[in-house]
Amino acid sequence: MIKKHQEVFSILKKRILRGVYKEKLPSIRNLIEEFSYNKSTILKALEELKEENLIEIKPCRGIYLTSHKNFEKMEKLTYEIDFKSAVPRGNIFPLEQFKESILKTLEFHGAKALEYEENQGYLLLRELISKKLEKLNIFENKENIFIVPGSQMAIEILAKALLYPGEIVGIETPYYPGAYEIFKNLGYKIIEIPMESDGIDLKYLEKILKKYSLKFLYTVPNFHNPTGITMSLEKMKKLIELSKKYNFYILEDDTMSELNYFQESKLLKSYDNLNKVIYLKSFSKIFNPGFKLGYVVIPKEIKLSFEKIFFKKNYFSSSLNQRAFYDFYKSSHWDNHIIDLKKTFKEKYLYTLGKLKEMKKIKFNKNLNGGLYFWIEIKNLDTYKLYLNLMKKNIGISPGIFFSDNFKNYFRFSFAREDINKIQKGIEELKEIFKISSKYNKDI
Amino acid sequence: MIKKHQEVFSILKKRILRGVYKEKLPSIRNLIEEFSYNKSTILKALEELKEENLIEIKPCRGIYLTSHKNFEKMEKLTYEIDFKSAVPRGNIFPLEQFKESILKTLEFHGAKALEYEENQGYLLLRELISKKLEKLNIFENKENIFIVPGSQMAIEILAKALLYPGEIVGIETPYYPGAYEIFKNLGYKIIEIPMESDGIDLKYLEKILKKYSLKFLYTVPNFHNPTGITMSLEKMKKLIELSKKYNFYILEDDTMSELNYFQESKLLKSYDNLNKVIYLKSFSKIFNPGFKLGYVVIPKEIKLSFEKIFFKKNYFSSSLNQRAFYDFYKSSHWDNHIIDLKKTFKEKYLYTLGKLKEMKKIKFNKNLNGGLYFWIEIKNLDTYKLYLNLMKKNIGISPGIFFSDNFKNYFRFSFAREDINKIQKGIEELKEIFKISSKYNKDI
Repeated sequence: MIKKHQEVFSILKKRILRGVYKEKLPSIRNLIEEFSYNKSTILKALEELKEENLIEIKPCRGIYLTSHKNFEKMEKLTYEIDFKSAVPRGNIFPLEQFKESILKTLEFHGAKALEYEENQGYLLLRELISKKLEKLNIFENKENIFIVPGSQMAIEILAKALLYPGEIVGIETPYYPGAYEIFKNLGYKIIEIPMESDGIDLKYLEKILKKYSLKFLYTVPNFHNPTGITMSLEKMKKLIELSKKYNFYILEDDTMSELNYFQESKLLKSYDNLNKVIYLKSFSKIFNPGFKLGYVVIPKEIKLSFEKIFFKKNYFSSSLNQRAFYDFYKSSHWDNHIIDLKKTFKEKYLYTLGKLKEMKKIKFNKNLNGGLYFWIEIKNLDTYKLYLNLMKKNIGISPGIFFSDNFKNYFRFSFAREDINKIQKGIEELKEIFKISSKYNKDI
Repeated sequence: MIKKHQEVFSILKKRILRGVYKEKLPSIRNLIEEFSYNKSTILKALEELKEENLIEIKPCRGIYLTSHKNFEKMEKLTYEIDFKSAVPRGNIFPLEQFKESILKTLEFHGAKALEYEENQGYLLLRELISKKLEKLNIFENKENIFIVPGSQMAIEILAKALLYPGEIVGIETPYYPGAYEIFKNLGYKIIEIPMESDGIDLKYLEKILKKYSLKFLYTVPNFHNPTGITMSLEKMKKLIELSKKYNFYILEDDTMSELNYFQESKLLKSYDNLNKVIYLKSFSKIFNPGFKLGYVVIPKEIKLSFEKIFFKKNYFSSSLNQRAFYDFYKSSHWDNHIIDLKKTFKEKYLYTLGKLKEMKKIKFNKNLNGGLYFWIEIKNLDTYKLYLNLMKKNIGISPGIFFSDNFKNYFRFSFAREDINKIQKGIEELKEIFKISSKYNKDI
């Protein structure tokens, strides 16, 4: 059921984006007349438009569209059809039930939910995580679990805890730029390890290991970003063996192992009998991204070094969020939410897969079996130009150079944000642009 | 009105801390009998005890006290009488009204309150802050305001944006260790500038400025931590002039300018006609510390450098918290909350001041007029030993060496957490210990 002010908001937003209004919107009085809603509803709608940086309300002068300069900036961030972002829209998360969790938390814990939390994270939440990990064959005490406000922060602290500047870190390529930038900024030497269709190229890795003293490997074993590839079990086991043989730590970054649409995902950490794997869990793709909460499981040998840096940083997840999440996470709402999520995304995955298969010029892995995006190669096409051209049509994609300089003919196509209608529409547009591009050859 | 489970919790907690129980608590059945409450109430109380790390529930075996080792660790963190922490207890914050703000936010914004927020922070919140600053004679556009999840993070990013390792930063001494540690860890040369009774020693500072290329000064002009001193207006203006003459930036850290019990505080930033002052506002002392939200006002000349590092860090305040805070902050609840807070703390300030004046052996500034603590000198006494002795009596203070090596005869006495009864009781204990200490001379 859509609320009145949301209805007004969405009508006005569409008009603004289509250029119906030039410099100004009609007066509040005129809007009240047009929509036949009361003033408070109209004001709420205007507040939402303001929030999206679409309008500015100038007292006694009227409602102005934001200047063209801001508008362009905004356009780049929000697309009419968004295949760029891999963060699902907020409306697929269970708002009502989560609201209950927040209320229960404030009711039951009172002021405690608003005071400082224990640095390592809310005790009961860490205990719950420990129990949930058991089901995934990971047996770790709550003492080795840290609640973190974001995965990039955890990656940074881990790197600092394990490496001196100038030392070597390995990363799968193409890579998640967030992690790469951290390593670069901290002054590490980064070695890029190629991906194969079943995960990281272990032969290449071993060559590197023989030649260099690599201390730390960053990997995304499930639905790797941006390729979507999942590491085979065989490789997982082999990788653990290598970590022992060559004595390095592995950071397993897990943002969406839940989103395997055909079977249960396996975690690298569950094969880690040597305590060489650090397991980092982010919820931003599967639960309220603005929530700023994840966790990391730290092998006890490095706990002290991690803790020292982490506690000093003094950046923690808010206590209310930790406790409300605990309440939700322990309930059946969580499991039901994951089931719903998988159902929704599986449908979109299959639809997108089918549509992309119809396109002849592109190459991509058709057996990802999960995740939120495809990594598409298109010969002889500079995907950065494609990106710019699609932007003009208000369609977003992520060109290959976002993920490494060596993938100029690739782009990441995410189906996280759009529904099937929009996916269809967007793919039609893509096809058009490909047609044009083949006429003019390289230059689209 | 205290809830049943909280009643049970607080009785059991007292018993545990007094050592009534040895290894185990009575069984759940026995507790139900004793308190005549139902099982769910008892379980809730036990959950709270568990959360405070006081007990462990072992299935089929009973309710165990946490091991002595954990217990000692815990004792150091929570004191029966806490003059150590300057963070007020959560129960002085307006829970019910804030709950309303959270509800309204979830109701009105829906899923948006749970998605990623704009990196710089929620637009309407930044706009509101800009308006509120006007009343304090600070005129800054929302574009120069950044919402941050904690002040330490902001200090770190600012330092990185303004200084190369090896460059010189100035800090008032004694100092807030959080800031000092950041500068030390980033490899800056730190020069300590002494405090006078009206703020930083400007003559000393100018000597330093003539001799060294100081680029950045960290200062707490209002209710300086730990001395409680407020910078005079004269010094504020003079300091701004120096920043121009010697070309350095000033970071004004403001955690409690609201807590002036006799007049309105002045902010250094309000005299900053040269755009040399960075104003950092933390709410952790005056509003829900576990909330992880503050802001920083950045001079536009350094905005780009700050932004670059901040956005890359990717540590933001949760969107729900930002939006709920916006709702609360804009309402009259906020103003009323500050009025209540000042009333409560003024009473405690005056009471503590009176009590401390009765003690002959100590010296301290009697004209702070606000804040949450006193900085007390006691000749010939190593306050670290005092700290350890008081800890045995379950009383907490902050010894001088926490704030710099040169203040061994000082301690910070905070009245933020305890009510007047406890302050009275604690000061009586302090007096006893001073008596003993004078007998045995230096060694108490």
